[in-house]
Amino acid sequence: MAVSPQDPLARLILCLGKLPGVGRRTAERMAMRLVRGKDGLLRELTEALRDAEANVTACNLCGSLTAQKQNPCRLCTSPGRDDSLLCIVDDPSDILVIERSGGYVGRYHALMGKVSPMRGNGPGDLRVQELLVRLSQSQVTEIILALGTDAEGETTASYLTELLSNKPLTISRLASGIPFGSAIGYSDPVTVARAFRARTTPGG
Amino acid sequence: MAVSPQDPLARLILCLGKLPGVGRRTAERMAMRLVRGKDGLLRELTEALRDAEANVTACNLCGSLTAQKQNPCRLCTSPGRDDSLLCIVDDPSDILVIERSGGYVGRYHALMGKVSPMRGNGPGDLRVQELLVRLSQSQVTEIILALGTDAEGETTASYLTELLSNKPLTISRLASGIPFGSAIGYSDPVTVARAFRARTTPGG
Repeated sequence: MAVSPQDPLARLILCLGKLPGVGRRTAERMAMRLVRGKDGLLRELTEALRDAEANVTACNLCGSLTAQKQNPCRLCTSPGRDDSLLCIVDDPSDILVIERSGGYVGRYHALMGKVSPMRGNGPGDLRVQELLVRLSQSQVTEIILALGTDAEGETTASYLTELLSNKPLTISRLASGIPFGSAIGYSDPVTVARAFRARTTPGG
Repeated sequence: MAVSPQDPLARLILCLGKLPGVGRRTAERMAMRLVRGKDGLLRELTEALRDAEANVTACNLCGSLTAQKQNPCRLCTSPGRDDSLLCIVDDPSDILVIERSGGYVGRYHALMGKVSPMRGNGPGDLRVQELLVRLSQSQVTEIILALGTDAEGETTASYLTELLSNKPLTISRLASGIPFGSAIGYSDPVTVARAFRARTTPGG
Protein backbone atom coordinates (compact mmCIF):
# COMPACT_ATOMS: atom_id res chain seq x y z
CA MET A 1 0.00 0.00 0.00
CA ALA A 2 1.67 3.18 -1.15
CA VAL A 3 1.65 6.03 1.36
CA SER A 4 3.38 8.83 -0.54
CA PRO A 5 1.59 12.21 -0.46
CA GLN A 6 0.77 11.84 -4.17
CA ASP A 7 -1.05 8.62 -3.45
CA PRO A 8 -4.82 9.13 -3.75
CA LEU A 9 -5.58 6.83 -0.82
CA ALA A 10 -3.05 8.56 1.45
CA ARG A 11 -4.48 11.89 0.39
CA LEU A 12 -8.00 10.81 1.31
CA ILE A 13 -6.84 9.48 4.70
CA LEU A 14 -4.99 12.73 5.41
CA CYS A 15 -8.04 14.75 4.49
CA LEU A 16 -10.51 12.68 6.56
CA GLY A 17 -8.11 12.98 9.51
CA LYS A 18 -8.72 16.73 9.57
CA LEU A 19 -12.37 16.23 10.54
CA PRO A 20 -13.19 16.76 14.22
CA GLY A 21 -12.87 13.63 16.35
CA VAL A 22 -11.12 11.63 13.64
CA GLY A 23 -7.70 10.17 14.43
CA ARG A 24 -5.39 8.45 11.98
CA ARG A 25 -6.80 4.98 12.58
CA THR A 26 -10.39 6.11 12.14
CA ALA A 27 -9.46 8.03 8.99
CA GLU A 28 -7.91 4.85 7.57
CA ARG A 29 -11.01 2.80 8.34
CA MET A 30 -13.21 5.49 6.79
CA ALA A 31 -11.10 5.69 3.63
CA MET A 32 -11.12 1.90 3.22
CA ARG A 33 -14.88 1.84 3.77
CA LEU A 34 -15.40 4.55 1.18
CA VAL A 35 -13.12 3.12 -1.48
CA ARG A 36 -14.02 -0.55 -1.04
CA GLY A 37 -17.72 -0.23 -0.29
CA LYS A 38 -19.83 -1.39 -3.19
CA ASP A 39 -22.88 0.60 -2.10
CA GLY A 40 -21.74 3.86 -3.69
CA LEU A 41 -21.17 5.73 -0.41
CA LEU A 42 -18.08 7.40 -1.87
CA ARG A 43 -20.03 8.93 -4.72
CA GLU A 44 -22.94 9.73 -2.40
CA LEU A 45 -20.60 11.66 -0.09
CA THR A 46 -18.92 13.45 -2.98
CA GLU A 47 -22.30 14.64 -4.20
CA ALA A 48 -23.53 15.59 -0.72
CA LEU A 49 -20.39 17.71 -0.25
CA ARG A 50 -20.83 19.40 -3.61
CA ASP A 51 -24.51 20.04 -2.84
CA ALA A 52 -23.66 21.48 0.59
CA GLU A 53 -20.93 23.70 -0.83
CA ALA A 54 -23.30 25.11 -3.42
CA ASN A 55 -26.52 25.36 -1.44
CA VAL A 56 -25.85 25.83 2.27
CA THR A 57 -25.48 29.30 3.70
CA ALA A 58 -25.54 31.05 7.08
CA CYS A 59 -29.00 32.13 8.23
CA ASN A 60 -29.21 35.93 8.21
CA LEU A 61 -30.92 35.94 11.60
CA CYS A 62 -29.60 33.21 13.89
CA GLY A 63 -26.30 32.63 12.08
CA SER A 64 -26.92 28.92 11.86
CA LEU A 65 -26.67 26.99 8.61
CA THR A 66 -29.60 26.67 6.27
CA ALA A 67 -30.44 25.89 2.66
CA GLN A 68 -29.92 28.93 0.45
CA LYS A 69 -33.56 28.93 -0.64
CA GLN A 70 -34.70 29.04 3.01
CA ASN A 71 -33.13 32.14 4.56
CA PRO A 72 -33.95 33.02 7.35
CA CYS A 73 -33.98 29.38 8.38
CA ARG A 74 -36.87 27.19 9.39
CA LEU A 75 -36.36 27.75 13.13
CA CYS A 76 -36.28 31.53 12.67
CA THR A 77 -39.45 31.60 10.55
CA SER A 78 -41.54 28.83 12.14
CA PRO A 79 -44.79 30.48 13.33
CA GLY A 80 -45.19 28.00 16.21
CA ARG A 81 -42.25 29.32 18.26
CA ASP A 82 -42.11 31.82 21.10
CA ASP A 83 -40.67 35.15 19.90
CA SER A 84 -40.18 36.42 23.45
CA LEU A 85 -37.39 33.90 24.18
CA LEU A 86 -33.94 34.08 22.61
CA CYS A 87 -31.38 31.38 23.35
CA ILE A 88 -27.73 32.36 22.79
CA VAL A 89 -25.38 29.53 21.78
CA ASP A 90 -21.73 29.40 20.82
CA ASP A 91 -21.95 27.05 17.85
CA PRO A 92 -24.92 26.26 15.55
CA SER A 93 -24.46 22.55 16.23
CA ASP A 94 -25.58 23.24 19.82
CA ILE A 95 -28.95 24.22 18.37
CA LEU A 96 -29.46 20.67 17.09
CA VAL A 97 -28.78 19.28 20.57
CA ILE A 98 -31.20 21.70 22.22
CA GLU A 99 -33.88 20.98 19.61
CA ARG A 100 -33.58 17.26 20.27
CA SER A 101 -34.08 17.86 24.00
CA GLY A 102 -37.57 19.20 23.28
CA GLY A 103 -37.09 21.54 26.24
CA TYR A 104 -37.13 24.85 24.37
CA VAL A 105 -39.60 26.54 22.04
CA GLY A 106 -38.07 30.02 21.49
CA ARG A 107 -35.68 31.41 18.89
CA TYR A 108 -31.89 31.07 18.63
CA HIS A 109 -28.82 33.23 18.08
CA ALA A 110 -25.42 31.65 17.40
CA LEU A 111 -22.41 33.75 18.40
CA MET A 112 -20.02 31.66 16.26
CA GLY A 113 -17.47 31.48 19.04
CA LYS A 114 -16.78 32.46 22.62
CA VAL A 115 -14.79 35.26 24.24
CA SER A 116 -11.36 33.73 24.80
CA PRO A 117 -8.43 35.96 25.77
CA MET A 118 -6.20 32.85 25.55
CA ARG A 119 -6.98 32.42 21.85
CA GLY A 120 -7.20 36.13 21.16
CA ASN A 121 -10.96 35.99 20.49
CA GLY A 122 -12.63 39.21 21.63
CA PRO A 123 -16.33 40.17 21.47
CA GLY A 124 -15.61 41.76 18.08
CA ASP A 125 -15.05 38.28 16.64
CA LEU A 126 -18.54 37.17 17.66
CA ARG A 127 -21.99 37.94 16.26
CA VAL A 128 -22.66 40.45 19.05
CA GLN A 129 -23.49 43.42 16.81
CA GLU A 130 -26.03 41.25 14.99
CA LEU A 131 -27.52 40.35 18.40
CA LEU A 132 -27.93 44.02 19.39
CA VAL A 133 -29.57 44.87 16.06
CA ARG A 134 -31.87 41.89 16.46
CA LEU A 135 -32.86 42.84 20.01
CA SER A 136 -33.67 46.41 18.94
CA GLN A 137 -36.14 45.06 16.35
CA SER A 138 -37.73 42.17 18.22
CA GLN A 139 -40.14 41.36 21.03
CA VAL A 140 -37.59 39.38 23.07
CA THR A 141 -38.14 39.60 26.83
CA GLU A 142 -35.79 36.86 28.01
CA ILE A 143 -32.29 35.96 26.91
CA ILE A 144 -31.22 32.42 27.83
CA LEU A 145 -27.45 31.95 27.81
CA ALA A 146 -26.58 28.36 26.78
CA LEU A 147 -22.83 28.78 26.52
CA GLY A 148 -21.46 25.83 28.43
CA THR A 149 -19.75 25.89 31.79
CA ASP A 150 -16.08 26.03 30.80
CA ALA A 151 -14.00 29.18 31.42
CA GLU A 152 -14.69 30.61 27.96
CA GLY A 153 -18.41 29.99 28.31
CA GLU A 154 -18.45 31.73 31.69
CA THR A 155 -16.43 34.68 30.36
CA THR A 156 -18.77 35.07 27.39
CA ALA A 157 -21.84 34.83 29.64
CA SER A 158 -20.44 37.52 31.98
CA TYR A 159 -19.62 39.79 29.06
CA LEU A 160 -23.13 39.49 27.58
CA THR A 161 -24.80 39.90 30.98
CA GLU A 162 -23.00 43.20 31.49
CA LEU A 163 -23.51 44.36 27.91
CA LEU A 164 -27.27 43.79 28.11
CA SER A 165 -27.72 44.91 31.74
CA ASN A 166 -29.32 48.26 30.80
CA LYS A 167 -31.97 46.64 28.60
CA PRO A 168 -35.45 45.63 29.82
CA LEU A 169 -34.61 41.93 29.58
CA THR A 170 -34.47 38.93 31.88
CA ILE A 171 -31.12 37.23 31.42
CA SER A 172 -30.98 33.59 32.51
CA ARG A 173 -28.53 30.71 32.19
CA LEU A 174 -29.09 26.98 31.80
CA ALA A 175 -29.15 25.22 35.17
CA SER A 176 -25.92 23.55 36.23
CA GLY A 177 -26.16 20.24 38.09
CA ILE A 178 -25.81 16.47 38.09
CA PRO A 179 -26.47 15.11 34.57
CA PHE A 180 -29.52 12.87 34.20
CA GLY A 181 -28.67 9.22 34.74
CA SER A 182 -25.30 10.06 36.25
CA ALA A 183 -24.09 8.90 39.67
CA ILE A 184 -22.98 11.55 42.15
CA GLY A 185 -19.79 9.58 42.69
CA TYR A 186 -18.72 10.29 39.13
CA SER A 187 -19.47 14.03 39.23
CA ASP A 188 -16.71 16.56 39.80
CA PRO A 189 -16.75 18.68 42.99
CA VAL A 190 -17.75 21.93 41.27
CA THR A 191 -20.76 20.25 39.67
CA VAL A 192 -21.80 18.76 43.01
CA ALA A 193 -21.40 22.12 44.78
CA ARG A 194 -23.48 23.84 42.09
CA ALA A 195 -26.13 21.14 42.30
CA PHE A 196 -26.36 21.77 46.05
CA ARG A 197 -26.63 25.53 45.61
CA ALA A 198 -29.35 25.15 42.96
CA ARG A 199 -31.21 22.33 44.74
CA THR A 200 -34.95 22.10 44.22
CA THR A 201 -37.78 20.90 46.44
CA PRO A 202 -40.15 18.17 45.17
CA GLY A 203 -42.72 19.81 42.95
CA GLY A 204 -40.78 23.10 43.14
CA MET B 1 -32.00 24.90 10.58
CA ALA B 2 -33.99 22.81 8.13
CA VAL B 3 -33.73 19.06 8.55
CA SER B 4 -35.89 17.78 5.70
CA PRO B 5 -34.27 15.06 3.55
CA GLN B 6 -34.05 17.53 0.66
CA ASP B 7 -31.94 19.83 2.78
CA PRO B 8 -28.30 19.76 1.65
CA LEU B 9 -26.97 19.99 5.22
CA ALA B 10 -29.21 17.16 6.46
CA ARG B 11 -28.14 15.11 3.46
CA LEU B 12 -24.46 15.64 4.27
CA ILE B 13 -25.00 14.73 7.95
CA LEU B 14 -26.89 11.58 6.94
CA CYS B 15 -24.11 10.61 4.56
CA LEU B 16 -21.26 11.23 7.03
CA GLY B 17 -23.16 9.19 9.61
CA LYS B 18 -22.76 6.10 7.41
CA LEU B 19 -18.98 6.14 7.91
CA PRO B 20 -17.61 3.64 10.42
CA GLY B 21 -17.44 4.97 13.98
CA VAL B 22 -19.49 8.08 13.23
CA GLY B 23 -22.67 8.63 15.24
CA ARG B 24 -25.25 11.32 14.63
CA ARG B 25 -23.59 13.91 16.87
CA THR B 26 -20.16 13.42 15.29
CA ALA B 27 -21.68 13.58 11.81
CA GLU B 28 -23.26 16.91 12.73
CA ARG B 29 -19.99 18.31 14.04
CA MET B 30 -18.19 17.13 10.90
CA ALA B 31 -20.78 18.65 8.59
CA MET B 32 -20.63 22.00 10.42
CA ARG B 33 -16.84 21.91 10.32
CA LEU B 34 -16.86 21.20 6.60
CA VAL B 35 -19.45 23.79 5.62
CA ARG B 36 -18.32 26.58 7.94
CA GLY B 37 -14.55 26.07 7.78
CA LYS B 38 -12.87 28.81 5.78
CA ASP B 39 -9.79 26.67 5.03
CA GLY B 40 -11.36 24.87 2.08
CA LEU B 41 -11.49 21.44 3.73
CA LEU B 42 -14.85 20.76 2.08
CA ARG B 43 -13.44 21.23 -1.39
CA GLU B 44 -10.25 19.39 -0.44
CA LEU B 45 -12.29 16.38 0.69
CA THR B 46 -14.49 16.49 -2.41
CA GLU B 47 -11.40 16.37 -4.59
CA ALA B 48 -9.70 13.65 -2.53
CA LEU B 49 -12.82 11.51 -2.87
CA ARG B 50 -12.98 12.05 -6.62
CA ASP B 51 -9.28 11.27 -6.94
CA ALA B 52 -9.65 8.09 -4.86
CA GLU B 53 -12.68 6.95 -6.85
CA ALA B 54 -10.82 7.40 -10.12
CA ASN B 55 -7.34 6.22 -9.16
CA VAL B 56 -7.44 3.69 -6.33
CA THR B 57 -7.76 0.00 -7.10
CA ALA B 58 -7.27 -3.36 -5.40
CA CYS B 59 -3.72 -4.73 -5.63
CA ASN B 60 -3.70 -7.83 -7.85
CA LEU B 61 -1.49 -9.69 -5.41
CA CYS B 62 -2.29 -8.81 -1.79
CA GLY B 63 -5.80 -7.47 -2.39
CA SER B 64 -5.05 -4.28 -0.55
CA LEU B 65 -5.70 -0.85 -2.02
CA THR B 66 -3.16 0.90 -4.20
CA ALA B 67 -2.86 3.65 -6.77
CA GLN B 68 -3.88 2.38 -10.23
CA LYS B 69 -0.47 3.19 -11.67
CA GLN B 70 1.23 1.06 -8.98
CA ASN B 71 -0.24 -2.44 -9.26
CA PRO B 72 0.98 -4.73 -7.66
CA CYS B 73 1.33 -2.31 -4.74
CA ARG B 74 4.48 -0.95 -3.15
CA LEU B 75 4.55 -3.57 -0.38
CA CYS B 76 4.19 -6.42 -2.89
CA THR B 77 6.96 -5.10 -5.14
CA SER B 78 9.44 -3.62 -2.65
CA PRO B 79 12.75 -5.50 -3.14
CA GLY B 80 13.72 -5.09 0.53
CA ARG B 81 11.10 -7.48 1.90
CA ASP B 82 11.27 -11.17 2.78
CA ASP B 83 9.50 -13.29 0.14
CA SER B 84 9.51 -16.37 2.37
CA LEU B 85 7.02 -14.84 4.84
CA LEU B 86 3.35 -14.26 4.03
CA CYS B 87 1.09 -12.59 6.58
CA ILE B 88 -2.64 -13.27 6.16
CA VAL B 89 -4.97 -10.51 7.34
CA ASP B 90 -8.71 -10.03 7.24
CA ASP B 91 -8.87 -6.41 6.15
CA PRO B 92 -6.29 -4.29 4.25
CA SER B 93 -6.44 -1.67 6.98
CA ASP B 94 -4.78 -4.20 9.31
CA ILE B 95 -1.72 -4.01 7.03
CA LEU B 96 -1.27 -0.35 7.94
CA VAL B 97 -1.31 -1.21 11.65
CA ILE B 98 1.22 -4.02 11.21
CA GLU B 99 3.47 -1.80 9.08
CA ARG B 100 3.47 0.86 11.77
CA SER B 101 4.56 -1.73 14.36
CA GLY B 102 7.81 -2.23 12.45
CA GLY B 103 7.70 -5.87 13.59
CA TYR B 104 7.27 -7.53 10.20
CA VAL B 105 9.25 -7.47 6.94
CA GLY B 106 7.47 -10.08 4.78
CA ARG B 107 4.60 -9.87 2.28
CA TYR B 108 0.84 -9.64 2.87
CA HIS B 109 -2.37 -11.26 1.69
CA ALA B 110 -5.75 -9.75 2.60
CA LEU B 111 -8.67 -12.18 2.70
CA MET B 112 -11.27 -9.37 2.57
CA GLY B 113 -13.31 -10.93 5.32
CA LYS B 114 -13.47 -13.81 7.76
CA VAL B 115 -15.30 -17.11 7.81
CA SER B 116 -18.50 -16.35 9.69
CA PRO B 117 -21.35 -18.87 9.71
CA MET B 118 -23.41 -16.31 11.66
CA ARG B 119 -23.22 -13.82 8.78
CA GLY B 120 -23.32 -16.45 6.08
CA ASN B 121 -19.71 -15.79 4.99
CA GLY B 122 -18.04 -18.98 3.82
CA PRO B 123 -14.50 -19.50 2.52
CA GLY B 124 -15.82 -18.91 -1.01
CA ASP B 125 -16.44 -15.27 -0.09
CA LEU B 126 -12.78 -14.77 0.82
CA ARG B 127 -9.64 -14.43 -1.33
CA VAL B 128 -8.66 -18.05 -0.62
CA GLN B 129 -8.36 -19.17 -4.26
CA GLU B 130 -6.03 -16.23 -4.90
CA LEU B 131 -3.98 -17.35 -1.89
CA LEU B 132 -3.60 -20.90 -3.24
CA VAL B 133 -2.56 -19.63 -6.68
CA ARG B 134 -0.07 -17.30 -5.04
CA LEU B 135 1.43 -20.04 -2.87
CA SER B 136 1.87 -22.33 -5.89
CA GLN B 137 3.94 -19.65 -7.61
CA SER B 138 5.97 -18.24 -4.72
CA GLN B 139 8.83 -19.06 -2.36
CA VAL B 140 6.75 -18.70 0.80
CA THR B 141 7.89 -21.00 3.62
CA GLU B 142 5.92 -19.51 6.52
CA ILE B 143 2.33 -18.33 6.70
CA ILE B 144 1.60 -16.00 9.63
CA LEU B 145 -2.08 -15.79 10.49
CA ALA B 146 -2.92 -12.32 11.84
CA LEU B 147 -6.68 -12.71 12.02
CA GLY B 148 -7.58 -11.43 15.47
CA THR B 149 -8.70 -13.48 18.43
CA ASP B 150 -12.48 -13.21 18.13
CA ALA B 151 -14.60 -16.24 17.20
CA GLU B 152 -14.55 -15.43 13.47
CA GLY B 153 -10.79 -14.93 13.49
CA GLU B 154 -10.30 -18.28 15.23
CA THR B 155 -12.66 -20.04 12.81
CA THR B 156 -10.85 -18.57 9.80
CA ALA B 157 -7.45 -19.51 11.25
CA SER B 158 -8.60 -23.10 11.84
CA TYR B 159 -10.00 -23.35 8.33
CA LEU B 160 -6.76 -22.10 6.72
CA THR B 161 -4.58 -24.26 8.96
CA GLU B 162 -6.46 -27.35 7.79
CA LEU B 163 -6.58 -26.25 4.16
CA LEU B 164 -2.82 -25.72 4.03
CA SER B 165 -1.85 -28.68 6.25
CA ASN B 166 -0.59 -30.79 3.33
CA LYS B 167 1.75 -28.08 2.05
CA PRO B 168 5.41 -27.78 3.06
CA LEU B 169 4.74 -24.64 5.10
CA THR B 170 5.14 -23.48 8.66
CA ILE B 171 1.84 -22.00 9.81
CA SER B 172 2.07 -19.63 12.77
CA ARG B 173 -0.24 -17.22 14.55
CA LEU B 174 0.44 -13.92 16.27
CA ALA B 175 1.16 -14.38 19.98
CA SER B 176 -1.75 -13.75 22.31
CA GLY B 177 -1.02 -12.10 25.68
CA ILE B 178 -1.14 -9.04 27.88
CA PRO B 179 -1.00 -5.87 25.72
CA PHE B 180 2.07 -3.68 26.18
CA GLY B 181 1.53 -1.04 28.84
CA SER B 182 -1.58 -2.77 30.17
CA ALA B 183 -2.11 -3.85 33.77
CA ILE B 184 -2.94 -7.49 34.42
CA GLY B 185 -5.86 -6.37 36.54
CA TYR B 186 -7.55 -4.95 33.47
CA SER B 187 -7.04 -8.01 31.28
CA ASP B 188 -9.79 -10.55 30.74
CA PRO B 189 -9.37 -14.12 32.07
CA VAL B 190 -8.86 -15.73 28.64
CA THR B 191 -6.05 -13.28 27.82
CA VAL B 192 -4.37 -13.94 31.17
CA ALA B 193 -4.68 -17.71 30.72
CA ARG B 194 -3.17 -17.48 27.23
CA ALA B 195 -0.38 -15.26 28.49
CA PHE B 196 0.44 -17.92 31.09
CA ARG B 197 0.43 -20.73 28.53
CA ALA B 198 2.66 -18.75 26.16
CA ARG B 199 4.95 -17.37 28.90
CA THR B 200 8.56 -16.72 27.95
CA THR B 201 11.81 -16.89 29.94
CA PRO B 202 14.07 -13.80 30.11
CA GLY B 203 16.12 -13.70 26.93
CA GLY B 204 14.05 -16.58 25.54
